Amino acid sequence: MSDTIDPLEMRLYAMDVWVRDKAVLVDRERIAATLYAAAKAGRATVLGEKFYTFPNGAVTGVLILAQSHLSIHTWPELGLANLDLLSYGALDGDEVMKVVEESLGASRSKLTCIPRAGTA
Amino acid sequence: MSDTIDPLEMRLYAMDVWVRDKAVLVDRERIAATLYAAAKAGRATVLGEKFYTFPNGAVTGVLILAQSHLSIHTWPELGLANLDLLSYGALDGDEVMKVVEESLGASRSKLTCIPRAGTA
Repeated sequence: MSDTIDPLEMRLYAMDVWVRDKAVLVDRERIAATLYAAAKAGRATVLGEKFYTFPNGAVTGVLILAQSHLSIHTWPELGLANLDLLSYGALDGDEVMKVVEESLGASRSKLTCIPRAGTA
Repeated sequence: MSDTIDPLEMRLYAMDVWVRDKAVLVDRERIAATLYAAAKAGRATVLGEKFYTFPNGAVTGVLILAQSHLSIHTWPELGLANLDLLSYGALDGDEVMKVVEESLGASRSKLTCIPRAGTA
């Protein structure tokens, strides 16, 4: 973060991923490793993390990034995971999402990218 | 979370808020109190939190919710805060965002709400 941040570079990536093997959606270690690998691939700097496992094994995880945050919520009963990345500047959001898809074994996915704050 | 979750009820609220007084954007306690008040107003259940303060005073905060997550990133140099709420079911996202606007003293805001996962 700096005084020269350009609001036009603020973007939100929202991706829903359906996986081939629902077991990955209750594998907290694999999910955490996936987020860290994706952040690294996108050149993000991780500053902190918070994970929570629900009674049914579903996992919520958030990485605090110098460039904002990357979160996942898994739905084993639906074979689905929600990914959200709020990003700025040089972070490569497409690469982040690509690594997540590969690591979780996606059968299909839906990605939306929307600009943020740029029209103030 | 339950086996009867309806993917059609998955929504992402993304809001950018410009504030009248930039000082609120470096007030970590007020920001945390804002998130908790907003979550409560929207009938969300908070399961965990993670906050981070940047060298310039900017704050990133995330609440893990039973219904997903609520995050904030503040940009004091821009007089701006980004709010993101991923939600399911009975959570009242509009009320969450309304409380944030009031608590931070918004001069203007831009809210986008997009459906998630419903078209699998």
